[in-house]
Amino acid sequence: MPAKLSPFHQAIDFIAYIERLKSVIRKNALHDGSRPENTAEHSWHAALSAILLAPYANFPVDQDRVARMLLIHDLVEIEAGDTFVYDMQELAGQDAAESRAAQEIFRRLPADQGLALKALWEEFEARQTPEAMFAKAVDRFLPMYSNLRNGGSSWVPHAISQSQVRELAEIIREGSITLWEWVDRELTQAEQDGLLLP
Amino acid sequence: MPAKLSPFHQAIDFIAYIERLKSVIRKNALHDGSRPENTAEHSWHAALSAILLAPYANFPVDQDRVARMLLIHDLVEIEAGDTFVYDMQELAGQDAAESRAAQEIFRRLPADQGLALKALWEEFEARQTPEAMFAKAVDRFLPMYSNLRNGGSSWVPHAISQSQVRELAEIIREGSITLWEWVDRELTQAEQDGLLLP
Repeated sequence: MPAKLSPFHQAIDFIAYIERLKSVIRKNALHDGSRPENTAEHSWHAALSAILLAPYANFPVDQDRVARMLLIHDLVEIEAGDTFVYDMQELAGQDAAESRAAQEIFRRLPADQGLALKALWEEFEARQTPEAMFAKAVDRFLPMYSNLRNGGSSWVPHAISQSQVRELAEIIREGSITLWEWVDRELTQAEQDGLLLP
Repeated sequence: MPAKLSPFHQAIDFIAYIERLKSVIRKNALHDGSRPENTAEHSWHAALSAILLAPYANFPVDQDRVARMLLIHDLVEIEAGDTFVYDMQELAGQDAAESRAAQEIFRRLPADQGLALKALWEEFEARQTPEAMFAKAVDRFLPMYSNLRNGGSSWVPHAISQSQVRELAEIIREGSITLWEWVDRELTQAEQDGLLLP
Protein backbone atom coordinates (compact mmCIF):
# COMPACT_ATOMS: atom_id res chain seq x y z
CA MET A 1 0.00 0.00 0.00
CA PRO A 2 1.24 3.51 -0.80
CA ALA A 3 0.99 4.54 2.87
CA LYS A 4 2.51 7.97 2.46
CA LEU A 5 0.02 9.37 -0.04
CA SER A 6 -2.17 12.24 1.19
CA PRO A 7 -5.94 11.60 1.20
CA PHE A 8 -6.22 13.85 -1.87
CA HIS A 9 -3.60 11.87 -3.77
CA GLN A 10 -5.26 8.62 -2.75
CA ALA A 11 -8.48 9.92 -4.32
CA ILE A 12 -6.65 10.98 -7.49
CA ASP A 13 -5.02 7.56 -7.80
CA PHE A 14 -8.34 5.84 -7.12
CA ILE A 15 -9.95 7.75 -9.99
CA ALA A 16 -7.31 6.28 -12.32
CA TYR A 17 -7.69 2.84 -10.76
CA ILE A 18 -11.48 2.63 -11.21
CA GLU A 19 -11.09 3.74 -14.82
CA ARG A 20 -10.29 0.07 -15.54
CA LEU A 21 -13.99 -0.73 -15.11
CA LYS A 22 -14.44 0.65 -18.65
CA SER A 23 -12.43 -2.36 -19.83
CA VAL A 24 -14.40 -5.03 -17.94
CA ILE A 25 -16.64 -6.65 -20.54
CA ARG A 26 -20.04 -8.05 -19.63
CA LYS A 27 -21.92 -10.98 -21.14
CA ASN A 28 -24.78 -8.91 -22.52
CA ALA A 29 -24.77 -6.62 -25.55
CA LEU A 30 -26.04 -3.09 -26.11
CA HIS A 31 -29.71 -2.67 -27.08
CA ASP A 32 -28.69 -2.36 -30.73
CA GLY A 33 -26.58 -5.52 -30.45
CA SER A 34 -23.53 -3.74 -31.84
CA ARG A 35 -21.07 -4.80 -29.15
CA PRO A 36 -20.86 -6.20 -25.60
CA GLU A 37 -21.48 -3.76 -22.78
CA ASN A 38 -18.73 -2.75 -20.36
CA THR A 39 -19.29 -2.49 -16.63
CA ALA A 40 -18.63 1.26 -16.35
CA GLU A 41 -21.37 2.23 -18.81
CA HIS A 42 -23.67 -0.37 -17.23
CA SER A 43 -23.09 1.28 -13.84
CA TRP A 44 -24.07 4.67 -15.29
CA HIS A 45 -27.20 3.18 -16.85
CA ALA A 46 -28.13 1.46 -13.60
CA ALA A 47 -27.68 4.57 -11.43
CA LEU A 48 -29.74 6.78 -13.73
CA SER A 49 -32.40 4.10 -14.31
CA ALA A 50 -32.81 3.81 -10.54
CA ILE A 51 -33.54 7.53 -10.29
CA LEU A 52 -36.12 7.21 -13.07
CA LEU A 53 -37.77 4.12 -11.59
CA ALA A 54 -37.65 5.16 -7.92
CA PRO A 55 -41.36 6.10 -7.88
CA TYR A 56 -42.14 2.43 -8.61
CA ALA A 57 -40.09 0.89 -5.78
CA ASN A 58 -42.05 -1.29 -3.35
CA PHE A 59 -40.93 0.89 -0.45
CA PRO A 60 -40.02 4.59 -0.28
CA VAL A 61 -36.32 4.79 -1.15
CA ASP A 62 -33.65 7.48 -0.96
CA GLN A 63 -32.98 7.64 -4.69
CA ASP A 64 -29.59 9.31 -4.31
CA ARG A 65 -28.45 6.55 -1.98
CA VAL A 66 -29.61 3.95 -4.52
CA ALA A 67 -27.74 5.79 -7.27
CA ARG A 68 -24.55 5.97 -5.20
CA MET A 69 -24.87 2.26 -4.45
CA LEU A 70 -25.16 1.48 -8.16
CA LEU A 71 -22.21 3.71 -9.06
CA ILE A 72 -19.96 1.48 -6.92
CA HIS A 73 -21.80 -1.87 -6.99
CA ASP A 74 -19.56 -3.47 -9.61
CA LEU A 75 -16.15 -2.01 -8.70
CA VAL A 76 -15.25 -5.48 -7.41
CA GLU A 77 -15.28 -6.66 -11.04
CA ILE A 78 -12.00 -4.78 -11.58
CA GLU A 79 -10.39 -7.55 -9.53
CA ALA A 80 -12.92 -10.39 -9.72
CA GLY A 81 -14.26 -10.03 -13.27
CA ASP A 82 -17.86 -10.30 -14.48
CA THR A 83 -19.78 -13.52 -13.89
CA PHE A 84 -22.50 -14.85 -16.17
CA VAL A 85 -25.63 -14.88 -14.05
CA TYR A 86 -26.76 -18.22 -15.56
CA ASP A 87 -23.46 -20.01 -14.90
CA MET A 88 -24.00 -21.73 -11.54
CA GLN A 89 -20.48 -23.13 -11.35
CA GLU A 90 -18.89 -19.75 -11.92
CA LEU A 91 -21.29 -18.08 -9.48
CA ALA A 92 -20.36 -20.49 -6.67
CA GLY A 93 -16.89 -19.03 -6.22
CA GLN A 94 -17.91 -15.48 -6.94
CA ASP A 95 -19.03 -14.31 -3.49
CA ALA A 96 -15.70 -15.06 -1.85
CA ALA A 97 -13.77 -13.56 -4.76
CA GLU A 98 -15.85 -10.38 -4.63
CA SER A 99 -15.43 -10.02 -0.85
CA ARG A 100 -11.66 -10.27 -1.24
CA ALA A 101 -11.83 -7.75 -4.07
CA ALA A 102 -13.84 -5.30 -1.97
CA GLN A 103 -11.28 -5.60 0.82
CA GLU A 104 -8.47 -4.82 -1.63
CA ILE A 105 -10.24 -2.04 -3.49
CA PHE A 106 -11.71 0.13 -0.77
CA ARG A 107 -8.57 0.24 1.35
CA ARG A 108 -6.95 2.22 -1.46
CA LEU A 109 -9.07 5.15 -0.29
CA PRO A 110 -8.72 7.43 2.75
CA ALA A 111 -10.12 5.46 5.69
CA ASP A 112 -13.38 7.42 6.11
CA GLN A 113 -14.30 7.23 2.40
CA GLY A 114 -13.14 3.63 2.05
CA LEU A 115 -15.15 2.42 5.02
CA ALA A 116 -18.26 4.30 3.92
CA LEU A 117 -18.16 2.93 0.37
CA LYS A 118 -17.36 -0.59 1.53
CA ALA A 119 -20.33 -0.47 3.91
CA LEU A 120 -22.52 0.73 1.03
CA TRP A 121 -21.34 -2.15 -1.16
CA GLU A 122 -21.99 -4.66 1.65
CA GLU A 123 -25.47 -3.20 2.12
CA PHE A 124 -26.12 -3.69 -1.59
CA GLU A 125 -24.92 -7.29 -1.49
CA ALA A 126 -26.93 -8.14 1.66
CA ARG A 127 -30.19 -6.95 0.02
CA GLN A 128 -31.93 -6.20 3.32
CA THR A 129 -32.62 -2.45 3.18
CA PRO A 130 -35.21 -0.87 0.85
CA GLU A 131 -32.42 0.88 -1.07
CA ALA A 132 -30.43 -2.34 -1.56
CA MET A 133 -33.49 -4.36 -2.58
CA PHE A 134 -34.43 -1.72 -5.13
CA ALA A 135 -30.87 -1.30 -6.42
CA LYS A 136 -30.60 -5.07 -6.92
CA ALA A 137 -33.91 -5.04 -8.78
CA VAL A 138 -32.69 -2.40 -11.23
CA ASP A 139 -29.37 -4.18 -11.66
CA ARG A 140 -31.19 -7.43 -12.42
CA PHE A 141 -33.66 -5.73 -14.75
CA LEU A 142 -31.19 -4.05 -17.11
CA PRO A 143 -29.57 -7.10 -18.75
CA MET A 144 -33.04 -8.61 -19.22
CA TYR A 145 -34.15 -5.38 -20.88
CA SER A 146 -31.11 -5.55 -23.19
CA ASN A 147 -31.97 -9.11 -24.15
CA LEU A 148 -35.59 -8.19 -24.78
CA ARG A 149 -34.42 -5.42 -27.12
CA ASN A 150 -31.57 -7.15 -28.96
CA GLY A 151 -33.13 -10.51 -29.78
CA GLY A 152 -31.82 -12.34 -26.71
CA SER A 153 -28.15 -11.94 -27.56
CA SER A 154 -27.00 -13.54 -24.29
CA TRP A 155 -30.01 -15.89 -23.97
CA VAL A 156 -30.16 -17.60 -27.36
CA PRO A 157 -26.51 -18.75 -27.63
CA HIS A 158 -26.72 -20.31 -24.14
CA ALA A 159 -30.18 -21.87 -24.63
CA ILE A 160 -31.59 -20.08 -21.59
CA SER A 161 -35.16 -21.03 -20.62
CA GLN A 162 -37.96 -18.76 -19.50
CA SER A 163 -38.02 -20.52 -16.12
CA GLN A 164 -34.36 -19.68 -15.54
CA VAL A 165 -35.03 -16.03 -16.27
CA ARG A 166 -38.20 -15.99 -14.15
CA GLU A 167 -36.27 -17.37 -11.22
CA LEU A 168 -33.78 -14.52 -11.47
CA ALA A 169 -36.62 -12.05 -11.95
CA GLU A 170 -37.79 -12.74 -8.39
CA ILE A 171 -35.21 -10.20 -7.25
CA ILE A 172 -36.97 -7.62 -9.40
CA ARG A 173 -40.26 -8.46 -7.67
CA GLU A 174 -38.65 -7.91 -4.26
CA GLY A 175 -37.69 -4.38 -5.28
CA SER A 176 -40.54 -3.30 -7.57
CA ILE A 177 -43.71 -5.22 -8.30
CA THR A 178 -44.59 -2.71 -11.03
CA LEU A 179 -41.32 -3.38 -12.82
CA TRP A 180 -41.58 -7.13 -12.30
CA GLU A 181 -45.10 -7.23 -13.79
CA TRP A 182 -43.83 -5.50 -16.91
CA VAL A 183 -40.86 -7.88 -17.19
CA ASP A 184 -43.12 -10.88 -16.61
CA ARG A 185 -45.36 -9.97 -19.56
CA GLU A 186 -42.34 -9.30 -21.77
CA LEU A 187 -40.86 -12.70 -20.88
CA THR A 188 -44.03 -14.43 -22.02
CA GLN A 189 -43.71 -12.59 -25.31
CA ALA A 190 -39.99 -13.44 -25.54
CA GLU A 191 -40.78 -17.11 -25.14
CA GLN A 192 -43.41 -16.90 -27.88
CA ASP A 193 -40.84 -15.16 -30.08
CA GLY A 194 -38.34 -17.96 -29.51
CA LEU A 195 -35.78 -15.88 -27.59
CA LEU A 196 -36.15 -18.22 -24.60
CA LEU A 197 -36.70 -21.97 -24.36
CA PRO A 198 -40.08 -22.97 -22.84
CA MET B 1 -44.98 12.52 -28.66
CA PRO B 2 -46.42 9.22 -27.42
CA ALA B 3 -49.05 11.05 -25.36
CA LYS B 4 -50.91 7.96 -24.20
CA LEU B 5 -48.03 6.24 -22.42
CA SER B 6 -48.32 5.89 -18.66
CA PRO B 7 -45.61 7.59 -16.57
CA PHE B 8 -44.13 4.14 -15.89
CA HIS B 9 -43.96 3.29 -19.59
CA GLN B 10 -42.44 6.69 -20.33
CA ALA B 11 -39.68 5.86 -17.82
CA ILE B 12 -39.15 2.42 -19.38
CA ASP B 13 -38.90 3.94 -22.85
CA PHE B 14 -36.55 6.63 -21.58
CA ILE B 15 -34.20 3.98 -20.18
CA ALA B 16 -33.92 2.51 -23.69
CA TYR B 17 -33.56 5.98 -25.24
CA ILE B 18 -30.66 7.08 -23.01
CA GLU B 19 -28.89 3.79 -23.72
CA ARG B 20 -27.71 5.48 -26.94
CA LEU B 21 -25.26 7.53 -24.88
CA LYS B 22 -23.08 4.40 -24.83
CA SER B 23 -22.61 4.94 -28.57
CA VAL B 24 -21.67 8.63 -28.43
CA ILE B 25 -17.90 8.69 -28.89
CA ARG B 26 -15.76 11.37 -27.27
CA LYS B 27 -12.52 12.93 -28.49
CA ASN B 28 -10.37 11.60 -25.65
CA ALA B 29 -9.15 8.06 -25.13
CA LEU B 30 -9.10 5.75 -22.10
CA HIS B 31 -6.14 6.05 -19.73
CA ASP B 32 -4.50 3.06 -21.41
CA GLY B 33 -5.05 4.65 -24.83
CA SER B 34 -6.76 1.51 -26.14
CA ARG B 35 -9.86 3.20 -27.58
CA PRO B 36 -11.87 6.43 -27.47
CA GLU B 37 -14.15 6.90 -24.49
CA ASN B 38 -17.92 6.94 -24.83
CA THR B 39 -20.11 9.45 -23.04
CA ALA B 40 -22.00 6.93 -20.86
CA GLU B 41 -18.86 5.55 -19.23
CA HIS B 42 -17.50 9.09 -18.91
CA SER B 43 -20.70 10.08 -17.06
CA TRP B 44 -20.20 7.19 -14.62
CA HIS B 45 -16.59 8.17 -14.06
CA ALA B 46 -17.55 11.80 -13.52
CA ALA B 47 -20.33 11.05 -11.02
CA LEU B 48 -18.16 8.73 -8.93
CA SER B 49 -15.10 11.00 -9.15
CA ALA B 50 -17.23 13.86 -7.83
CA ILE B 51 -18.16 11.80 -4.76
CA LEU B 52 -14.47 11.01 -4.19
CA LEU B 53 -13.33 14.61 -4.68
CA ALA B 54 -16.19 16.33 -2.85
CA PRO B 55 -14.04 16.97 0.27
CA TYR B 56 -11.82 19.18 -1.91
CA ALA B 57 -14.54 21.40 -3.38
CA ASN B 58 -14.12 25.14 -2.72
CA PHE B 59 -17.53 25.26 -1.04
CA PRO B 60 -19.49 22.64 0.89
CA VAL B 61 -21.45 20.67 -1.72
CA ASP B 62 -24.27 18.14 -1.63
CA GLN B 63 -22.28 15.29 -3.21
CA ASP B 64 -25.38 13.30 -4.20
CA ARG B 65 -26.75 16.32 -6.04
CA VAL B 66 -23.43 16.73 -7.86
CA ALA B 67 -23.46 13.03 -8.77
CA ARG B 68 -27.03 13.25 -10.08
CA MET B 69 -26.07 16.30 -12.12
CA LEU B 70 -23.15 14.43 -13.67
CA LEU B 71 -25.28 11.38 -14.43
CA ILE B 72 -27.44 13.53 -16.72
CA HIS B 73 -25.05 16.32 -17.77
CA ASP B 74 -24.27 14.88 -21.19
CA LEU B 75 -27.64 13.39 -22.18
CA VAL B 76 -27.93 16.26 -24.65
CA GLU B 77 -25.13 14.61 -26.64
CA ILE B 78 -27.58 11.91 -27.73
CA GLU B 79 -29.10 14.60 -29.97
CA ALA B 80 -26.34 17.20 -30.27
CA GLY B 81 -23.19 15.03 -30.30
CA ASP B 82 -19.90 15.59 -28.51
CA THR B 83 -17.92 18.77 -29.21
CA PHE B 84 -14.14 19.04 -29.05
CA VAL B 85 -13.46 21.53 -26.29
CA TYR B 86 -10.59 23.11 -28.26
CA ASP B 87 -12.63 23.63 -31.44
CA MET B 88 -13.92 27.22 -31.10
CA GLN B 89 -15.94 27.10 -34.32
CA GLU B 90 -17.75 23.95 -33.29
CA LEU B 91 -18.33 25.27 -29.77
CA ALA B 92 -20.01 28.44 -31.06
CA GLY B 93 -23.13 26.60 -32.24
CA GLN B 94 -23.14 24.09 -29.41
CA ASP B 95 -25.07 26.00 -26.73
CA ALA B 96 -28.13 26.49 -28.92
CA ALA B 97 -28.00 22.89 -30.16
CA GLU B 98 -27.77 21.58 -26.62
CA SER B 99 -30.67 23.72 -25.41
CA ARG B 100 -32.84 22.38 -28.21
CA ALA B 101 -31.69 18.87 -27.36
CA ALA B 102 -32.56 19.31 -23.67
CA GLN B 103 -36.03 20.52 -24.64
CA GLU B 104 -36.53 17.43 -26.81
CA ILE B 105 -35.04 14.93 -24.39
CA PHE B 106 -36.60 15.81 -21.06
CA ARG B 107 -40.15 16.10 -22.39
CA ARG B 108 -40.03 12.37 -23.05
CA LEU B 109 -40.38 11.91 -19.29
CA PRO B 110 -43.39 12.31 -16.99
CA ALA B 111 -43.74 16.07 -16.40
CA ASP B 112 -42.48 16.14 -12.80
CA GLN B 113 -39.36 14.08 -13.53
CA GLY B 114 -38.69 15.84 -16.82
CA LEU B 115 -38.91 19.31 -15.32
CA ALA B 116 -36.73 18.37 -12.35
CA LEU B 117 -33.99 16.85 -14.52
CA LYS B 118 -34.12 19.69 -17.03
CA ALA B 119 -33.75 22.20 -14.18
CA LEU B 120 -30.77 20.21 -12.87
CA TRP B 121 -29.15 20.25 -16.32
CA GLU B 122 -29.74 24.02 -16.63
CA GLU B 123 -28.22 24.53 -13.19
CA PHE B 124 -25.15 22.58 -14.32
CA GLU B 125 -24.82 24.64 -17.50
CA ALA B 126 -25.29 27.97 -15.70
CA ARG B 127 -22.41 27.19 -13.28
CA GLN B 128 -23.69 29.48 -10.53
CA THR B 129 -24.39 27.14 -7.61
CA PRO B 130 -21.63 25.40 -5.58
CA GLU B 131 -22.80 22.02 -6.91
CA ALA B 132 -22.74 23.15 -10.54
CA MET B 133 -19.33 24.83 -10.20
CA PHE B 134 -17.89 21.69 -8.66
CA ALA B 135 -19.56 19.35 -11.17
CA LYS B 136 -18.15 21.43 -14.05
CA ALA B 137 -14.69 21.27 -12.44
CA VAL B 138 -14.78 17.47 -12.29
CA ASP B 139 -16.11 17.26 -15.85
CA ARG B 140 -13.31 19.51 -17.06
CA PHE B 141 -10.66 17.64 -15.05
CA LEU B 142 -11.31 14.13 -16.35
CA PRO B 143 -10.29 14.50 -20.02
CA MET B 144 -7.15 16.37 -18.88
CA TYR B 145 -6.38 13.48 -16.53
CA SER B 146 -6.83 11.03 -19.44
CA ASN B 147 -4.42 13.04 -21.57
CA LEU B 148 -1.89 13.22 -18.74
CA ARG B 149 -2.04 9.42 -18.45
CA ASN B 150 -2.14 8.40 -22.11
CA GLY B 151 0.55 10.60 -23.60
CA GLY B 152 -1.74 13.42 -24.69
CA SER B 153 -3.77 11.36 -27.13
CA SER B 154 -6.18 14.22 -27.89
CA TRP B 155 -3.60 17.01 -27.35
CA VAL B 156 -0.68 15.92 -29.52
CA PRO B 157 -2.55 15.29 -32.81
CA HIS B 158 -4.22 18.73 -32.55
CA ALA B 159 -1.05 20.59 -31.45
CA ILE B 160 -2.72 21.91 -28.32
CA SER B 161 -0.67 24.38 -26.26
CA GLN B 162 -0.30 24.56 -22.49
CA SER B 163 -1.92 28.01 -22.50
CA GLN B 164 -5.04 26.61 -24.20
CA VAL B 165 -5.31 23.93 -21.54
CA ARG B 166 -4.61 26.37 -18.72
CA GLU B 167 -7.39 28.62 -19.94
CA LEU B 168 -9.85 25.71 -19.79
CA ALA B 169 -8.45 24.71 -16.39
CA GLU B 170 -9.81 27.95 -14.90
CA ILE B 171 -13.13 26.15 -14.53
CA ILE B 172 -11.38 23.58 -12.35
CA ARG B 173 -10.06 26.40 -10.15
CA GLU B 174 -13.58 27.79 -9.73
CA GLY B 175 -14.73 24.45 -8.32
CA SER B 176 -11.68 23.15 -6.48
CA ILE B 177 -8.41 25.00 -5.90
CA THR B 178 -6.85 21.80 -4.55
CA LEU B 179 -7.62 19.94 -7.76
CA TRP B 180 -6.54 22.87 -9.92
CA GLU B 181 -3.16 23.13 -8.14
CA TRP B 182 -2.52 19.46 -8.87
CA VAL B 183 -3.52 19.86 -12.53
CA ASP B 184 -1.41 23.00 -12.84
CA ARG B 185 1.75 21.18 -11.72
CA GLU B 186 0.98 18.24 -14.01
CA LEU B 187 0.54 20.58 -16.99
CA THR B 188 3.99 22.03 -16.41
CA GLN B 189 5.36 18.50 -16.48
CA ALA B 190 3.32 17.66 -19.60
CA GLU B 191 4.80 20.66 -21.42
CA GLN B 192 8.30 19.55 -20.42
CA ASP B 193 7.46 16.06 -21.69
CA GLY B 194 6.35 17.46 -25.04
CA LEU B 195 2.67 16.52 -24.71
CA LEU B 196 1.71 20.18 -25.03
CA LEU B 197 3.15 23.02 -27.09
CA PRO B 198 4.74 25.83 -25.02
